[in-house]
This record gives sequence, structure tokens and C-alpha cells, in this order.
Amino acid sequence: MSEDNFIFDTIAIVGVGLIGGSLGMAVKKRRLARRVVGIGRTEQKLMRAKILGAIDHYSMDIEKGAEDADLVVVCTPVSLIAPTLQRMAASFKAGAIVTDVGSTKSEVVRQAESVLPEGVHFVGGHPMAGSEQAGVEAAFADLFLGATYVFTPGGNTDFNALGRLTELADAIGSNVEIMTPDDHDRATAIISHLPHVMSAALLGIAEQAQHESGKVFALAAGSFRDLTRISDSSPELWRDIVFTNKSALLQAIGMLQGSMADFKLALIENDEEAVMRFFEQAGIIRQTFQRISK
Amino acid sequence: MSEDNFIFDTIAIVGVGLIGGSLGMAVKKRRLARRVVGIGRTEQKLMRAKILGAIDHYSMDIEKGAEDADLVVVCTPVSLIAPTLQRMAASFKAGAIVTDVGSTKSEVVRQAESVLPEGVHFVGGHPMAGSEQAGVEAAFADLFLGATYVFTPGGNTDFNALGRLTELADAIGSNVEIMTPDDHDRATAIISHLPHVMSAALLGIAEQAQHESGKVFALAAGSFRDLTRISDSSPELWRDIVFTNKSALLQAIGMLQGSMADFKLALIENDEEAVMRFFEQAGIIRQTFQRISK
Repeated sequence: MSEDNFIFDTIAIVGVGLIGGSLGMAVKKRRLARRVVGIGRTEQKLMRAKILGAIDHYSMDIEKGAEDADLVVVCTPVSLIAPTLQRMAASFKAGAIVTDVGSTKSEVVRQAESVLPEGVHFVGGHPMAGSEQAGVEAAFADLFLGATYVFTPGGNTDFNALGRLTELADAIGSNVEIMTPDDHDRATAIISHLPHVMSAALLGIAEQAQHESGKVFALAAGSFRDLTRISDSSPELWRDIVFTNKSALLQAIGMLQGSMADFKLALIENDEEAVMRFFEQAGIIRQTFQRISK
Repeated sequence: MSEDNFIFDTIAIVGVGLIGGSLGMAVKKRRLARRVVGIGRTEQKLMRAKILGAIDHYSMDIEKGAEDADLVVVCTPVSLIAPTLQRMAASFKAGAIVTDVGSTKSEVVRQAESVLPEGVHFVGGHPMAGSEQAGVEAAFADLFLGATYVFTPGGNTDFNALGRLTELADAIGSNVEIMTPDDHDRATAIISHLPHVMSAALLGIAEQAQHESGKVFALAAGSFRDLTRISDSSPELWRDIVFTNKSALLQAIGMLQGSMADFKLALIENDEEAVMRFFEQAGIIRQTFQRISK
């Protein structure tokens, strides 16, 4: 494809790993920007990103590397988003649009808005694809195809900026969802963060029981494998995610505790009907989810 | 293959569904018995099993259909194993070996031993393959290839009977594990029954949150799909399983509750180190499990 479809002139990507690198590749493949600049601390990584076609140029000057950018996408781990923006804030050009790709949004959006100057438009974003950890070697232009890309506007969000980001997300093949940062965090607490905690808890319990009887892992079949697959992820990443989504996650854990207490009571009281309903409803919800998520 | 490798003369399979049917096919394919008799209540299903090559003959006489059998394998749902054995008990021939394929063992073994007469040798079994629900149409001879097949001898178990069953399980390609009924139930409570309860609880929570915000299922990605896949199973089956493994499951739920309470406290107290360790250890356990289960 050689036709230009520029949505932005210059896009700066801060942190060119799996997500940042894939975004650069997706933009360049579809010619959605005149140039893509990669910004980072390690020249070797940036060179690799350039060789792999994720960026056109690069800069190790965090403070000023994005001064020409019309769009800045911060792809650092979630705990570094606000500090990074603070270092870059003074050099952003007037009217620049800034977004991030962090897994939690309320705290990030609040912090980002507080460090950015008037006239720079921040919109929180969360492309739900891949993991922030795997590096540019794992990046590919079609990572976002069919993925959900959430934007989380708040009271201060510039709607023109939101519109252009939506256009970009759409152009790289993702499905845009718009919701408030709080709605995003409550939903991901249940859909993603609680499952990670449950998976880790189950592994801990299994190990404890294995230690006692030596007979647990030998029996572990598909369901155990399925439930614990997500615990292959980076502990640092998950520590950051749970602490930046603390209140929503605490609420989700509370819901799980309530559900477990109800089930336990039904079991103790030999309430076969309640136990049957518990599994039956789960099956119905699962089928509904399967239907609407196809 | 046309050579006979008879381990038993006549095998009776009571309940010719996915597991029973696959067992019949596996036995016939490898010529491990001179004949396989299917026993059940519905002639149509038994005829289908015969047409599909799972059995040689069939009988709808539960009381006496297995009177010639050297091995009787009860493949009914777990709650029907003891009642079925009670009806059949008087007609078993002296020295017959009897086993079941139920997902829980302590209660089944205790009940089975109490209803069977002297001289009939019961050994509890649990081939960890497939699901009891899918019917003979889904049966195939290689279902047990590479699967774990647990036998659960107790103080009353005849070791010759255990040896011949082990030989059979080995001949159909499964990996035999021997453990006590209690060890089996404790292990499966953690490896399988608790995960099912967790999956159902997560679905219930997600539905509740979806109802409140309307934004949950739209974000559900791979981890949610993985964790809830097992809730596609039959609620009746799971009701039976959890009630026949009540005490081990209650203990496993208690362990989960303890782990959740610890995690919640670490989160509330901003104990980043404890949270990090929680995820880190889970990753290490997961890797160990992956290594030993290959």
C-alpha cells in the first residue's frame, strides 16, 4: 500500500516494546503518520526498533525528543507514565495530543492531567492486546486487529483529541470502546485483575497441598492449566497494576469473598438446590458472554 | 491388529456414555477382552453403542446383566454408583472385579465396599479424561491415551484386582497413579473442584457488575475466557461432585479464603513486597508445574 492516510504528521512513541513497537508498525504499514519517532533510554533497543520498522527515527532525549510530535503515546509500565509525562511536559507543542496505553486508568488519568500544561490534550487509552513486557522483537503490525481499544475521557477531555485517537485506533483495526476511567477500572478489576489474583492464589494453594501429600500436580488436568495460564506474566507488571487499581480490585475481591461464603454455606447446609443454581447460572452467563463476545 | 491380548474374558460396562463407550472401544481395538457387554436403561442408546463398536452385546437387565462378567466398570454419574452396585450386587460372580469411574472417591469407595458381598473385589478408579456427559457419540478408542488414570485402593482392596486393573489402564494407553481415596479427593478438590467453583463465582460477579455498569463483558479478554471455560459443564454433574467431595472442597475453599484475605491485607497496607512475592511465587509454581506435567 503506498497511499498516504495521514491522521497525524509526527507520532512520538515513548517506550518501544511490544505495544509501542506494534503501534509504530501498524501506523507505518497503513501510512497513518508522516513519521514515527521512538523515544527511550537504551540506544540498542531503539536501533532494533528502527531496524524492525517500528519507528523512522529515535531519540534518547526524554525531555525534548517529542517536541515536534502531534501525538505522543506513552507506552511505559503503568507506574512510570506520570513521571515520564512530568519530565516531557514542558517541551510538548501547543495542541499536542497525548495518550498512554496503561492497564489501569483512573489514577493515571488524574496524574497525567495534573502534570500536563494547558493546551496539551490528554486522553487515557488502553489497547487490550498483548502484554507490556515482551519487547519490540515480539511486535507486529496486526497486534491490534480485532482487539478492544478503550479510551477513557473525563470532564477535562478535548473531544477533538478523542475523535482523532478514535480514528487512529479504528485505522489500525481495533474496536473502540469509550468509557469513564472509573468504569474501565471497575470492569478490568473483575475481568482481568481479579482473575490474575485468583490464578496466583490457586497456584499457592496447590503448591501447599502438593507439599503436604506429594499427590497434587500429578492430577492437574485441563481446568487447572486453564486457570493458571495467566500467571506466566511479569510480577512487576502485576504489582503495578493492582496498586494503581487498588480500590476497584478490593471491591472485586470483596465480591468474590461474598460469593465464596454463600457457596460454602450452601454446601455446609446441604442446600443442593442453591449449589445447582450456582453452577447453572454460571453456565448461562458463560453462554451469554460467548455469544456477545464472538 | 488381530492378535488377542485378553486381560479379562468378559467386561461389563454399566452406562455406555463418553467414558464407558470409549473404554469399550479401547478394549475392543486392542483385543483386551473376549467380549464387552453394555448395560443400561435405554435400548436406543445401547444399540447406538453397539453400532459404534463400543460393545459386543447389551442388556437392559441391571440386576443380572453383568452376571457373567469378570470385570464390571460402573460409568454412571457419581451419585448413582452406589445405588447401581446395590441393585447388581447379588448377581456378581465370585471373584469378579468391580471398579467405577467417578470423579470423587472416598464416599464412593466406602459405599461400594459396604454394598458388595464378600468375594467381589472393588477398586475405586478415576480416569481423568473427558466428561461423563457427552454420550457415546463422542466416544473414541484413544480417549485415555496419555491421560492420568487414578486407582484408589484402601485397607480392604485385593491387590490382585488392583494389579489387573492397572494392567488394563496401562494397555489402553493411560498413566496409572495409585493413591488413597482421601489423597485423591484432596488433590482433585484443589486441582479441579475449587477451580470450577472459582470459575462459577467469577461469572456471577461479572454478571452482577455488567448489570450495574453495562461495560464489563465488552472488555472481557483472554484471561476471563480461560478462567471461565470450565463452566460450560453440566450443573447436575458438578452438584454431585461437590456434595460427594464436601469436606475436601470445604477445606480447599478455606485455603482460598485465607489466601484472599492475606492478599487483601497486603493491598490495603500497601505492602508492595508481599504483593510482588505473591505474583512471583505463583509464576515459579506455574513454571514448575509446566515442567513436571509435560
